[in-house]
Amino acid sequence: KEPITAPTDFTLRLSFAVETCKLKHINRATLLCDGSRRENSGEHSWHIALYALTMAPIAHAPVSVGRVVRMLLLHDIVEIDAGDAPIHGDYDPAEMAAKEQAAADRLFGLLPRDQGAELRDLWTEFEDAKTTDAIYAKSVDRVQPLISNLVGDGGSWREYNVSYYQLVSRVGAKIQRGAPELWTEMDKRIRSHPWFVAEFD
Amino acid sequence: KEPITAPTDFTLRLSFAVETCKLKHINRATLLCDGSRRENSGEHSWHIALYALTMAPIAHAPVSVGRVVRMLLLHDIVEIDAGDAPIHGDYDPAEMAAKEQAAADRLFGLLPRDQGAELRDLWTEFEDAKTTDAIYAKSVDRVQPLISNLVGDGGSWREYNVSYYQLVSRVGAKIQRGAPELWTEMDKRIRSHPWFVAEFD
Ligand SMILES: [Ca+2]
Repeated sequence: KEPITAPTDFTLRLSFAVETCKLKHINRATLLCDGSRRENSGEHSWHIALYALTMAPIAHAPVSVGRVVRMLLLHDIVEIDAGDAPIHGDYDPAEMAAKEQAAADRLFGLLPRDQGAELRDLWTEFEDAKTTDAIYAKSVDRVQPLISNLVGDGGSWREYNVSYYQLVSRVGAKIQRGAPELWTEMDKRIRSHPWFVAEFD
Repeated sequence: KEPITAPTDFTLRLSFAVETCKLKHINRATLLCDGSRRENSGEHSWHIALYALTMAPIAHAPVSVGRVVRMLLLHDIVEIDAGDAPIHGDYDPAEMAAKEQAAADRLFGLLPRDQGAELRDLWTEFEDAKTTDAIYAKSVDRVQPLISNLVGDGGSWREYNVSYYQLVSRVGAKIQRGAPELWTEMDKRIRSHPWFVAEFD
């Protein structure tokens, strides 16, 4: 009989690797650019990390791209337990925050203690959106559905019947804060999209 | 009439963002951990970037995690044009390499020139697998299907009828090179998997 021993650091890292696979099953409100299906939070996290890399020259201030990318790789893993809260949907923010804290306890808790604490701090920094890096990371997270909807027929704008002013307040303001030029450029394009153009007639 | 002007840097970055969305449609031979469907190269890229972050303490040498993560975010985008070549499948490596070079020309060519060249250099570094960072990045890329197959019923090992010795030569050797402890630990677990255990009877 094998003696009962504490799991090794490797065993802990392996269980984190296996558990995070589940993020690929969490579907977002956003459709892929071609509209063929909903996007899952795993592929979303990849795509915005890549955005963060290429859009860094237009961040609101000099950022550490490496830290921003790490934040974005981690930012959604709590959805494995808490689910995705669509930006234009209705949910109770306090209840959602409590669920996400519990999810963070469990998921970052799978890792060796110091590593789990370090990555959880990065996640908290992203959520708090106060540092230069986190403010930019948030803007990148928020711009992605806009790009999908813009190149498609409006996707989640149509589904949630989003008005231009709702978009500006819930999404535009955060994009502008983290990457002003990114918002200016997107805003120009959004105003010309068939879904919104009627509002300006 | 608007005058014909060169696209702005923003327009170029936006077209790269939209074009890379297609990586979410490229399916790999690997199944998700729960076996429910094939994994796409977008979510795969996210997951191994996260692996690279958590497994860095067992890299073969001190690595720049930020550079490794950037390589992994980019490493598969050429599949948008060239498709995925399954590691246990049959394909002509020279023909595949030519397709991938053409894909890299087109895709990195969408970005502003300096940025495209910088990211393409990172991709080439990954492909060449000669630097400390690239050797570690390759080991992380190679270990992921092993983890999926290990926690499932063998997945692509069964599908491609992979022998233990084939696995060691095509996959294990590269994992060992970039992260020796990662291979030692995986090897122990692989030898006990029902799919391979018969070979050791
Ligand atoms: Ca998100």
